[in-house]
Amino acid sequence: MVRGDSGDRSAAKGEEIGVASAPHLEPMREREKASLDLLSELIRADLERVNRLIVERMQSPVSLIPQLAGHIVAGGGKRLRPMLTLGAARLCGYCGGRHVALAAAVEFIHTATLLHDDVVDASDKRRGRDTANALWGDKPALLVGDFLFARAFELMVADGSLKVLQILSRASAIIAEGEVHQLLTTSDTATTQEAYLAVIEAKTAELFAAASRVGAVVAERPLEEEEALERFGRNLGIAFQLVDDMLDFRAERADLGKNIGDDFREGKMTLPVLLALARGDEEERAFWGRTIGELDQRPGDLERATLLVERHGALDETHSRARFYAQKAVEALAIFPEGALREALIEAAIFATERGF
Amino acid sequence: MVRGDSGDRSAAKGEEIGVASAPHLEPMREREKASLDLLSELIRADLERVNRLIVERMQSPVSLIPQLAGHIVAGGGKRLRPMLTLGAARLCGYCGGRHVALAAAVEFIHTATLLHDDVVDASDKRRGRDTANALWGDKPALLVGDFLFARAFELMVADGSLKVLQILSRASAIIAEGEVHQLLTTSDTATTQEAYLAVIEAKTAELFAAASRVGAVVAERPLEEEEALERFGRNLGIAFQLVDDMLDFRAERADLGKNIGDDFREGKMTLPVLLALARGDEEERAFWGRTIGELDQRPGDLERATLLVERHGALDETHSRARFYAQKAVEALAIFPEGALREALIEAAIFATERGF
Repeated sequence: MVRGDSGDRSAAKGEEIGVASAPHLEPMREREKASLDLLSELIRADLERVNRLIVERMQSPVSLIPQLAGHIVAGGGKRLRPMLTLGAARLCGYCGGRHVALAAAVEFIHTATLLHDDVVDASDKRRGRDTANALWGDKPALLVGDFLFARAFELMVADGSLKVLQILSRASAIIAEGEVHQLLTTSDTATTQEAYLAVIEAKTAELFAAASRVGAVVAERPLEEEEALERFGRNLGIAFQLVDDMLDFRAERADLGKNIGDDFREGKMTLPVLLALARGDEEERAFWGRTIGELDQRPGDLERATLLVERHGALDETHSRARFYAQKAVEALAIFPEGALREALIEAAIFATERGF
Repeated sequence: MVRGDSGDRSAAKGEEIGVASAPHLEPMREREKASLDLLSELIRADLERVNRLIVERMQSPVSLIPQLAGHIVAGGGKRLRPMLTLGAARLCGYCGGRHVALAAAVEFIHTATLLHDDVVDASDKRRGRDTANALWGDKPALLVGDFLFARAFELMVADGSLKVLQILSRASAIIAEGEVHQLLTTSDTATTQEAYLAVIEAKTAELFAAASRVGAVVAERPLEEEEALERFGRNLGIAFQLVDDMLDFRAERADLGKNIGDDFREGKMTLPVLLALARGDEEERAFWGRTIGELDQRPGDLERATLLVERHGALDETHSRARFYAQKAVEALAIFPEGALREALIEAAIFATERGF
């Protein structure tokens, strides 16, 4: 049993939300056209300040640190997590400047976990570019990750809110727990859907939840709004990771994302694999046992795996579950007034599920 | 140029301290008999509470985390850093309980860096036992390090002092900088003594300094006492690391410490090597260039290296410099009243330089 201590906060349990008051996913725009543009537009000036602060705070007299950190920070990430902090703060009517440093702290935590993930997974590509560990080696990548994590805390301490520090230090511990849990499920073909959900909720959704919640905290809004934004971020994060796991089999162009098939090659027990395994016949189960369980992979195996997850509807079902969580994210925003910011956050949730990269 | 931003705090610069008022290293006990026993005795109950809290806070529903963390935490470490926090707090007359959680946080930060160090150095032994990465692999060791680092911050946040958080988050960033800087000097036979000192001050002495300073902070003592304890910890930390680097060539029994010759095998540019290199003839410089610079090592090389550092007096000089910093650590305590606690901290500084393991 994993993460039992926070089961009451689990998004997977389904909260009752008044359907009548819930904003709908549609029909503001067609789903396929959803993007982060509206949100980017509304928080443009804040996001530029975040980017400047990130560059400023990754400096160090040890020149390898800004070189390596600059590579990953400039690596074309979507800045989705800091955008959530900025957007949530504005949605709560916040007019101050604290959200900028906290959004930068959120991005530093995320960047540190990316650096460590790539070391752990021995990945050589991320978003179509060489990873830091591929360029500089595992050791600097690991240690610069530590540096950025410490810098994130320095930024939060400078902000001075113990409440924010509590949210983000707790999230950081849960992320690490999720990463270790994921290691334990890797190549374990007996992994349950419950365990898979616990992993992605911890390793991915926790930071989305914390990033969003912090927006309400700086705005000093009531607990109800904090919790609504936390629920928004958590469900959005689950949807985001489900889509990531689907795209590992389906991304149309490798240069838009990480390498296709990375998760498969690493033996990760993602939902598409879990579903295809459960629905496969004996021969297919042997295939998954060899390729994922024993990591004995041969030419053509990724293609066969892709065929199997498609044939069993595992990708479509993963996508449909992602939409379910995105819908829950959208519903969590019901308590906030209508307006451009709420619309932009809704569109971000749709984008998370409909993106092709 | 590295760490120039904190040059004014550098212990290497030598503060003027009135000799008349300075406590002397001797003659309380003979140097060879110096131990941590007196300090342990005085803070026994506190240290037991720290150990209980460490075990309590490394728990996680992901069972691999307490298993792996328990292995390294129970690995027979001296608990020197948390002892400094406890001892410093008591020296400042502190009667509350906050120092216990902060001492545990200090030990978690230290443990996280040990786990990451052993991954970076691919070490298989620490204090005579298998390392976590040797037993469980690099991935869990790296990720459990992240978990413990996050837990350290959770402990500090629960304590609630922004000042403590500032000291320890800054120290954490500087430690990571020092580790990256050390990577850059590894196998670089042009490394200067200044660069070496910057590395050990950052990677080791910074946490000793922060751990000691925190004792004065919880006791709410004037800045003068904070700074004195910081200076005590910083100089003690430098002495401690100098002795560590000396013992890599001289430890009498491998089962008391890490493997003898680890630093040499990894190409670390420690002071004994720097000194022997500077004093060696052309043939010896070629030897260091091959073994440390190119990491081309053959049977008998460690023995030859040990002979060279002995012959050139490099180990004795390293030891004598360690004693110089230990003396500065002792002098920093001059502003505190005489008594058992001050005596115990003085003896800890002597122990750091006279220990054989």
